[in-house]
Amino acid sequence: MDDDNTPTPTIFTEMDTLQHEGGELEWKESARWVKFEEKVEEGGERWSKPHVSTLTLHSLFELRTCLQTGSILLDLEGYSLPQIVDDIVDRQIADGLVAPDLREKISFVLLRKHRHQTKKPIHRSLADIGKSSNTASSESVRHPSQSRSMNDISDTPSTDQLKNKFMKKIPRDAEASNVLIGEVDFLDKPFVSFVRLAQATTLGGLTEVPVPTRFLFILLGPHGKTKSYNEIGRAIATLMVDELFSDVAYKARDRDDLIAGVDEFLDEVIVLPPGEWDPKIRIEPPKKVPSADMRKSVLNLNELGQMNGSAGGAAGGEDEELPAPHELGEELKFTGRFGGGLWLDIKRKIPWYCSDIYDGFHIQSISAVLFIYLGCITNAITFGGLLGDATDNYQGVMESFLGTALAGTVFCVFGGQPLIILSSTGPILIFEKLLYEFSKNNGIDYMELRLWIGLHSCLQCFLLVVTDASYIIKYMTRFTEEGFSSLISFIFISDAIKKMVAWKYYPINRGFKPDYITAYKCECIAPDQGESSFFFSLHFNLTDLDWSQLSKKECVKYGGALVGSSCKYVPDLALMSFILFFGTYSMTVSLKKFKFSRYFPTKVRQKLISDFSIFMSIMCFVGLDMLMGLDTPKLIVPTEFKPTRSDRGWLVMPFGKNPWWWYVASFVPALLVTILIFMDQQISAVIVNRKENKLKKGCGYHLDLFWVGVLMAVCSFMGLPWYVAATVISIAHIDSLKMESESSAPGEQPQFLGVREQRLTGILVFVLTGLSIFLAPILQYIPMPVLYGVFLYMGVASLSGIQFWERIKLYLMPPKHQPDFSFLRHVPLRRVHLFTLVQIVCLAVLWILKSTFLAIIFPVMILGLMVVRKLLDLIFSQHDLAWLDDILPDKDKKKKEDEKKKKKDKKSVEPESDEEVRGKLWANMKLNSRLHTDTASACQTHSYCNLQSWRVFSGFTVHLNVCRSICCGCVDPRFVFSD
Amino acid sequence: MDDDNTPTPTIFTEMDTLQHEGGELEWKESARWVKFEEKVEEGGERWSKPHVSTLTLHSLFELRTCLQTGSILLDLEGYSLPQIVDDIVDRQIADGLVAPDLREKISFVLLRKHRHQTKKPIHRSLADIGKSSNTASSESVRHPSQSRSMNDISDTPSTDQLKNKFMKKIPRDAEASNVLIGEVDFLDKPFVSFVRLAQATTLGGLTEVPVPTRFLFILLGPHGKTKSYNEIGRAIATLMVDELFSDVAYKARDRDDLIAGVDEFLDEVIVLPPGEWDPKIRIEPPKKVPSADMRKSVLNLNELGQMNGSAGGAAGGEDEELPAPHELGEELKFTGRFGGGLWLDIKRKIPWYCSDIYDGFHIQSISAVLFIYLGCITNAITFGGLLGDATDNYQGVMESFLGTALAGTVFCVFGGQPLIILSSTGPILIFEKLLYEFSKNNGIDYMELRLWIGLHSCLQCFLLVVTDASYIIKYMTRFTEEGFSSLISFIFISDAIKKMVAWKYYPINRGFKPDYITAYKCECIAPDQGESSFFFSLHFNLTDLDWSQLSKKECVKYGGALVGSSCKYVPDLALMSFILFFGTYSMTVSLKKFKFSRYFPTKVRQKLISDFSIFMSIMCFVGLDMLMGLDTPKLIVPTEFKPTRSDRGWLVMPFGKNPWWWYVASFVPALLVTILIFMDQQISAVIVNRKENKLKKGCGYHLDLFWVGVLMAVCSFMGLPWYVAATVISIAHIDSLKMESESSAPGEQPQFLGVREQRLTGILVFVLTGLSIFLAPILQYIPMPVLYGVFLYMGVASLSGIQFWERIKLYLMPPKHQPDFSFLRHVPLRRVHLFTLVQIVCLAVLWILKSTFLAIIFPVMILGLMVVRKLLDLIFSQHDLAWLDDILPDKDKKKKEDEKKKKKDKKSVEPESDEEVRGKLWANMKLNSRLHTDTASACQTHSYCNLQSWRVFSGFTVHLNVCRSICCGCVDPRFVFSD
Repeated sequence: MDDDNTPTPTIFTEMDTLQHEGGELEWKESARWVKFEEKVEEGGERWSKPHVSTLTLHSLFELRTCLQTGSILLDLEGYSLPQIVDDIVDRQIADGLVAPDLREKISFVLLRKHRHQTKKPIHRSLADIGKSSNTASSESVRHPSQSRSMNDISDTPSTDQLKNKFMKKIPRDAEASNVLIGEVDFLDKPFVSFVRLAQATTLGGLTEVPVPTRFLFILLGPHGKTKSYNEIGRAIATLMVDELFSDVAYKARDRDDLIAGVDEFLDEVIVLPPGEWDPKIRIEPPKKVPSADMRKSVLNLNELGQMNGSAGGAAGGEDEELPAPHELGEELKFTGRFGGGLWLDIKRKIPWYCSDIYDGFHIQSISAVLFIYLGCITNAITFGGLLGDATDNYQGVMESFLGTALAGTVFCVFGGQPLIILSSTGPILIFEKLLYEFSKNNGIDYMELRLWIGLHSCLQCFLLVVTDASYIIKYMTRFTEEGFSSLISFIFISDAIKKMVAWKYYPINRGFKPDYITAYKCECIAPDQGESSFFFSLHFNLTDLDWSQLSKKECVKYGGALVGSSCKYVPDLALMSFILFFGTYSMTVSLKKFKFSRYFPTKVRQKLISDFSIFMSIMCFVGLDMLMGLDTPKLIVPTEFKPTRSDRGWLVMPFGKNPWWWYVASFVPALLVTILIFMDQQISAVIVNRKENKLKKGCGYHLDLFWVGVLMAVCSFMGLPWYVAATVISIAHIDSLKMESESSAPGEQPQFLGVREQRLTGILVFVLTGLSIFLAPILQYIPMPVLYGVFLYMGVASLSGIQFWERIKLYLMPPKHQPDFSFLRHVPLRRVHLFTLVQIVCLAVLWILKSTFLAIIFPVMILGLMVVRKLLDLIFSQHDLAWLDDILPDKDKKKKEDEKKKKKDKKSVEPESDEEVRGKLWANMKLNSRLHTDTASACQTHSYCNLQSWRVFSGFTVHLNVCRSICCGCVDPRFVFSD
Repeated sequence: MDDDNTPTPTIFTEMDTLQHEGGELEWKESARWVKFEEKVEEGGERWSKPHVSTLTLHSLFELRTCLQTGSILLDLEGYSLPQIVDDIVDRQIADGLVAPDLREKISFVLLRKHRHQTKKPIHRSLADIGKSSNTASSESVRHPSQSRSMNDISDTPSTDQLKNKFMKKIPRDAEASNVLIGEVDFLDKPFVSFVRLAQATTLGGLTEVPVPTRFLFILLGPHGKTKSYNEIGRAIATLMVDELFSDVAYKARDRDDLIAGVDEFLDEVIVLPPGEWDPKIRIEPPKKVPSADMRKSVLNLNELGQMNGSAGGAAGGEDEELPAPHELGEELKFTGRFGGGLWLDIKRKIPWYCSDIYDGFHIQSISAVLFIYLGCITNAITFGGLLGDATDNYQGVMESFLGTALAGTVFCVFGGQPLIILSSTGPILIFEKLLYEFSKNNGIDYMELRLWIGLHSCLQCFLLVVTDASYIIKYMTRFTEEGFSSLISFIFISDAIKKMVAWKYYPINRGFKPDYITAYKCECIAPDQGESSFFFSLHFNLTDLDWSQLSKKECVKYGGALVGSSCKYVPDLALMSFILFFGTYSMTVSLKKFKFSRYFPTKVRQKLISDFSIFMSIMCFVGLDMLMGLDTPKLIVPTEFKPTRSDRGWLVMPFGKNPWWWYVASFVPALLVTILIFMDQQISAVIVNRKENKLKKGCGYHLDLFWVGVLMAVCSFMGLPWYVAATVISIAHIDSLKMESESSAPGEQPQFLGVREQRLTGILVFVLTGLSIFLAPILQYIPMPVLYGVFLYMGVASLSGIQFWERIKLYLMPPKHQPDFSFLRHVPLRRVHLFTLVQIVCLAVLWILKSTFLAIIFPVMILGLMVVRKLLDLIFSQHDLAWLDDILPDKDKKKKEDEKKKKKDKKSVEPESDEEVRGKLWANMKLNSRLHTDTASACQTHSYCNLQSWRVFSGFTVHLNVCRSICCGCVDPRFVFSD
């Protein structure tokens, strides 16, 4: 066991207590630890929630004495429980701790069978309810939910053990430590033994799960101190699952090593004052615990970790580290070579290509595809409709669908970051609108002009790609990113609401009185033709038309007049749309939140309800809509594959319609388009590639831009809309693909592992979008308000992760109720507020500009945001900005970092790796414990100190320490427990 | 200070650290404690949230050494800080702890001015935002939000101190303890002093608030250990606010008493294992902390409190106390005298009568009156309408209003429990319906028969009153209570929803196509008269009526036919009603929940938004309704004061219409009514008088029943409906009058103090109900769906506090996610489920019966519930029932209790009052600390042990204890800090 560098296995601890059950002795499982404590509730048949083991200082000190006075058997060769028990008792007798005549009795007790608390399938426990109601008055005589094992000591794990589902919560390499605590009547002083086996061995039914046992802690004592014994058992169990102490336990050479481990543990414990905490409260496991390495380094540096409450002030706070600066990684390095970045991007992405496909095969992908697909077609229809309006149907819904499918598929197959979703965006729509108007007014052919702009823009993109221009994106901080993404989210939200509040399409007859229903009608009146009287025109029409039978549209078409008080109103539709819209939104939000409720098993809650929340909401409200049978506006997908305008084909010819100099002049508007595309694309990419998302496969800014450029040209040739990365849908895509660890130890929080990075979902989404033309019969049932509800959800959800948004909320909170954000601990509140205010003002200005014709220079304004951010350096200190924004890695800092690195290099002449720190620490500990060994060993045989009141407790500490450092003859006899 | 029995004042602790601020030394407040810790955040200008002070064990041991080695000045006569500082330094010099030449320097440092962290009004801090943005780059040079004081040491509190609003969080009798922690360069070993002043004295600007200082702890030390010093400062500050230690500090006679206090504290601390908890997490204050008395008794009994995780098993759990049995108090004792209970009730309530009026003058009453008023009139209208239907308007809305006002006012003025709200209830409605049908079919005068039934019932009630029959109610347990109140809640909820889903009144035209609006019309067609053709009848009517101008009602009235496809539909109203209903409900729920959000100051959130949530929701949706201008069904209040039926007067004559034997026979139906009234009234009363509501003024079951009887007779004479206590509205009444403590110490949870018991709100509600006839112009704007929303809320809210409901939810939760209910810790889950199942089945049976004609024997079925509960004794053990239900105090138990009492009596020969326990404890402590005094005092001058690593820390413990118990010559020099 001297090999200090092998990592020690994880320990699973089970604590069994001795019970008198119907006249028979048996060991009953009372608690277990993987990382946190789970206790068998008093009522039995149920495990408590995992919680932090709160101990008393008293029990820890008692445990320390137990280890000092009991027998310690390290590296015992054990193959079966009876043999191990024999060895333990032999040693106790040899040490004179126990009378030889008790051998039989102790062995008898220690070999009693063990009853474990096992989880049963639900149908069995339901059956039990029926059963037990008959035999109920004699309670706790039978425990049908507990399995008995080790009736005789077998070497192979029992079926109960093997069936135990709890096994999957225990790491594979785990070894067990068994704590046995009991009261017997034949002992007059405690019998304590700590055993480490040379090899982990499965000892029959000793442990609940088929995990081999490595450690055994046995405490038998006289009657009357159950609670105290139990607390000692809990203390050793908690110690055994402590990462540092278990290391010590594995490597300890003798008793003193163990005691040194306890002392080390004691020095690290956190203490709660008795007047400020109720010991009955079970503390829920925290989200994060300090890692063992951190704790070690703290110990090693002779520094106690800064406590949360440490009254630091300026002096104490200086050594607190600043937050790690935002790193964008090597993807955005300026290579200086022609197309160097693009080449690196390709080299980086190629090795992942296969996994990009097969990583997509997961149930989660289905919900992601459904979710994003619905977002995409909604977007395609919305923008298609708007583009059709703006360009007299030169680009309509059909082009929008085709373009989305084509561009999206190409990008997802070949792009650098396949998680990005391409879509039409607002700024481009505005550009097209202005361009079309310009063309019409000046008699220029729109499609040809547009083609040339597209080609120029494509070339400009290539230029940006080969010059690694994307590297400037790394000068963007949280300020700019958040500004941009908030703005896009707000646009999403406001669009969704604007679309919804379509009272103008379905006006409500506000003054409607049910009683006067007879007065509400709408009649189609034929147009006045010549001198014919009203009466005449109604009944004996000049044409063949029966005007009264015409529908509203027909009436208008044939020039009739709609007369009547109900003509301009449409009943029910507005309110129904509102219900569908708001219902979809709030149901999605509630179902998403359901993840955090207590109902149903985690899997159902998470995988089913939360992941498919959007799908379920849509289904639900589509159903409601069908049930009501109202003519709500539905999703209308083109069903025939042909351009929306019949006078254009699928290909645009580059020459012939416009004067030649337009081919050159289109360079200028193309420049605007290029800036727009570059900013829109790359900011979205930065947001997607954020460190928080823990992407592992790298990204490809240059590669992305390359493909966007190619698609520009292709779409221009085919007369399809142009596409760039869409922030909100891309974020939604990432969110729907997030992976969390299946938490291993009970009580441990699942950790965010990263995103399921693959190309499959994207490809599927866009292939489905293309196929939607054939899905029209199904899709036509989806009411638009439901889709707007989904839009609203997307917008709100993409806001939720943004720190800016959190800071806005702070305005409404009195300081004492504000959440414990780290930046609030370090930056004065009014500086935080000021920073937020600047952001709000910037956004407001952008929002106003966006609503004017200046929208076309929108991307340039994003550059403006970066300028504002630079100016903030004059107002805010670098310290504040480091917490509020991510500081740019500037020159000074780099220098410092370089120096640091140099220092590190120097240091690394001495070995300083993790394993070596561990080794040194260990050596230190050894040294220290050796100091006390001589005296301590002389003390060993003395005094088991299970003393009760605080007075004696203090005395007990005295005794303990006297033993360790001075001598043992001078022990005050008052404090000796036995003899 | 030897008077052990005077309670010691509460202590407020402020910790100031020494700062170098622009070349100048000053003391800056860094944390404060009232009960929990509040820290000045590093960024400054802001207090952290109050949190539990997590300490390191290390710092506590270091503090212990500080107290052992530093100078302790007890009962120092101090009138000003300079004089006190002089005394401290003198003592240190006298003790040889400090060189005399350092006197000046130490005094200089200790007399530097103190800067406190004060809260500023918001407008000033907003102004600062503007200001500071100019001077921002030079951060932390100015702290405009901090006040400077003690530029010179003044005796009167400064304006800053007096203005400090924090003062109101500190109890009146509080005294301050000031902890001063600093690093200086002229010391080479720490300077420690603990001072208790003989009289608490205001020492100028030493403390943030004008609280006189009693204790001073000073720790000055050489540079380099700020963190360690701060931790020691936090440790002593935490100790000072500990109730037991502060007691010790006030009464300590010497150094050893203090150290004994620290040891006592140490013995009680709760320890968190380092691997399971991150020390950086600030622990929120718990809802409840163990009281000092509890902690004392635990100490006294030589028992460590059972820790939450203690692996008890059957053996360990037995001594856990059962929950306290449900007590109904002396109100339900069987006196055995004629009208004895009634007499006691009157005697009990008379003394409270004045306070019953003036306690009502509180802002909370307004919201309560509004809330309950709306509930009452909704109820009055609903039941009025239903009664009108059932009795051909013999009792209509007018009677309902008048009766509610009359009965309610009388009951609230004279009743025993004025918090109970009388109302019409479902069972009585059903009885009236059956009675009216019977009368009509048999030619009996309904009003006269009803009068006689009412008179008989009144007499029977009196009989029940004078025989103290209400005492049987005390045999009702949670099982019955919850069954009854859940049932009533369900009825409320289902009624609200049924009323709402009134599609039949406002059918939606489901197939409506906006395009075919021309096809939708509804015309009034005159009835076919003779042979006139369709055309003819339309334009040249035989009568004077213009049929096409008639409204729907008129058309029907005059015998016309409504023809057209839109006749049977009413647009928008159904959906609008749904939006109003659901909107009101969900807005009320959200606003109620808003109490728990972080936004806005507590007062705004609680007093304004949460208390007035119902009112605000109603206002909001009434506004929406007015905005839409739709003809939603509105609240219609009668405006003229006359009986609904014109052929009856306000008085019913007892004789003349029915045969004489009916006067006698009506005894039998009266019996049914009496049982109904008795059960309904008294169960509601039990629910209102629940112990959880902490009512202080007692109740009056007999008195209540007496007035209900009187009102029966009065209402019968006036032909008004009969009234009994309405469970749901009464609970709502109580909920709206709940009082919570304004939490004193920051971080302490507000405690539920009780209910604002008074008669005023009830009286006002019913007077307003009576006046509603004149409020019709205002009330007519309230749409009924909004009121149904309020109904739904009432029903759901009254369910929320019920354990039965919590247990139902458990079915859906996997065991590991279930909340930590105490009954779950003690009763096996399947027994809990079985118990819940029985309740569900009972309720289902009752629900089904309620829907049939058997509804009339509804009250008898409640008795059935009690029988079922009795049968449960056979299935469940008393242990389980004690946790799930409140056990009846049966004979065996009483005997045991008597025995216990006797034992107590015996014991009380020795003094055992709280104060005496305290005294004894104190004596024990004294004794113990005396044991060590001789040796300890010899040790005092040694070794300040601020040692850093765990090794030395262990050594330090050694030293410490050696000093205490053995000798001090044998101290290992390695562990001595100085010399």
